[in-house]
Amino acid sequence: MSTAPACLSHSRVAITPALRAAVDRLDHRSRHQAAYHFGWITAGGAPTSADAGKAVRPALALLSAEAVGASPEVALPGAVAVELVHNFSLIHDDLMDGDEERRHRRTVWKLWGASSAILTGDALLALAQEVLLDSGLPTAAPAARLLARTTRHLIRGQVQDLSFEQRSHVTVEDCVDMAAGKTGALLSASAAIGAVLAGAPEATVDALALYGDQVGLSFQLVDDVLGIWGDPAVTGKPVHSDLRSRKKSLPVSHALNQDGPLSVELATWLTTPGEPDEEELRRVADLIAGAGGRDWALAEAARRMAQAEDALRGVELDAGARDELLALGRFVVDREV
Amino acid sequence: MSTAPACLSHSRVAITPALRAAVDRLDHRSRHQAAYHFGWITAGGAPTSADAGKAVRPALALLSAEAVGASPEVALPGAVAVELVHNFSLIHDDLMDGDEERRHRRTVWKLWGASSAILTGDALLALAQEVLLDSGLPTAAPAARLLARTTRHLIRGQVQDLSFEQRSHVTVEDCVDMAAGKTGALLSASAAIGAVLAGAPEATVDALALYGDQVGLSFQLVDDVLGIWGDPAVTGKPVHSDLRSRKKSLPVSHALNQDGPLSVELATWLTTPGEPDEEELRRVADLIAGAGGRDWALAEAARRMAQAEDALRGVELDAGARDELLALGRFVVDREV
Repeated sequence: MSTAPACLSHSRVAITPALRAAVDRLDHRSRHQAAYHFGWITAGGAPTSADAGKAVRPALALLSAEAVGASPEVALPGAVAVELVHNFSLIHDDLMDGDEERRHRRTVWKLWGASSAILTGDALLALAQEVLLDSGLPTAAPAARLLARTTRHLIRGQVQDLSFEQRSHVTVEDCVDMAAGKTGALLSASAAIGAVLAGAPEATVDALALYGDQVGLSFQLVDDVLGIWGDPAVTGKPVHSDLRSRKKSLPVSHALNQDGPLSVELATWLTTPGEPDEEELRRVADLIAGAGGRDWALAEAARRMAQAEDALRGVELDAGARDELLALGRFVVDREV
Repeated sequence: MSTAPACLSHSRVAITPALRAAVDRLDHRSRHQAAYHFGWITAGGAPTSADAGKAVRPALALLSAEAVGASPEVALPGAVAVELVHNFSLIHDDLMDGDEERRHRRTVWKLWGASSAILTGDALLALAQEVLLDSGLPTAAPAARLLARTTRHLIRGQVQDLSFEQRSHVTVEDCVDMAAGKTGALLSASAAIGAVLAGAPEATVDALALYGDQVGLSFQLVDDVLGIWGDPAVTGKPVHSDLRSRKKSLPVSHALNQDGPLSVELATWLTTPGEPDEEELRRVADLIAGAGGRDWALAEAARRMAQAEDALRGVELDAGARDELLALGRFVVDREV
């Protein structure tokens, strides 16, 4: 069994030629901007190899074919397609959020403007479907159907995320539903699409989809804890970063929905404008922890991870690929909390 | 044989329930904004029946199934899908172009902001594929493949259109290629998708696709002539509207690429900033006509329309449906010039 980092690097190597060939089909400008976004070229067009992310989704896709006894090659169009959908959403999200940098490089909209980011994102979304449907596999249609449905859930999650900024109150259910769309849906599809392309039975596909779903929620719970209490040296983000933006993350939504004075104080703080100083942020982080937000999120992350692992163990899968899927899920979720 | 307006109104009635059912699958916000955009509700959510466009694309889709001897019902998911892709592109284009009104109503971005327009457009694009692939038809995969490839060409056309604004020179070929993407591609897919869903032979599908393609280019050539010389009372646009924005339309690109002083004068004018007055606009319109731009565009529109009609007559089709397709094409292209 290889380690998760080795598995990720292996799948990155396996999919890059097909991903580049897909991007090469685009018009000149979208191709250039996508190639930049994927870290293959500089903004000026010179070859480079910038950080393009961990490529967790393609690795899940390849492993999901192996897990049902198929060759990872069968899953290649699926691995490319989920990576294209993921990057469509990053390019559009960066524009909507006004983020000027991603992985220490300027974002597409920042370099080429809003229209370019809209069109390049659109092009990657359409291309994902084209890659799947061009594969000639008899299972391409159900895989493309899964991907289209997943994209709808992904967009729903982003719509909810934006709407939370304008709402004074969100329930824990709203917040979990948002994370299930924004983070869970595409990880779920990634963990299932290789099995769909390999023609695996529905129960096996469902177990793999549930695995991805719950790994995604578990990841988001841990990520939200790190966004409030994470060590900047480990997370690479400023301390209390999610509190600075008054984000209604999962631990915050839990704390908000408790009875008692702490949740009232937190609700008041969330709707009070102004630039909080370090002392104030520490006090609010303690408030959320005091209302149980931190403990709940970590317990919930562990509970969902256990559910994810149970799902994988409940169906017959190739033992080696199952172990790699389990290792990859733990690698994604387990970080210094 | 019914007239083209009757055919359009018939197909609008035929597809609306399926289109509404598709839009109903979206998240609450995207659904609301899409329903507004389609003219079904007011911005506040009250039922209405505003002008939602001619729905030429669904009509072509339904007729293309009938033309190959199938029931129009077979083409219904295709008719809904092409209308969804068309409206995805309208919502994103309105945002990119900064257009505040469409059919005398405020645009989605103007009412709900840029992020809403991006996400609602994205949702309609993903939904188009989902509707096709959920149809359960054995031909859904080739139809979805056609739609994905078409979307790539549509985006290419929009990318070229935006890039022309920044270029001092465009060739006629560039300009025709842009129109083929922006206008031709989706009309071509619309005229073919019903036949694809009906499982028609490739030669028949190709002839129908060529018909839609050439009708699209012919439409664009006439539209560009109207954008310069059209009567505001007929076009509903201001006189010389395309000249005011210094648009490098098809007649302009033809005139620009002639030898002689007229094209040099035109090229200079196109790159000179400022608000031209009526007299100046009349002079530039005469310049373009003098360099042959108007006559060329009208002759080219007629030539392409003849090619389109030849394509339809070159394959075996249901005679009634062929006549309706021909009538619909002429209705789309023939306007008071």
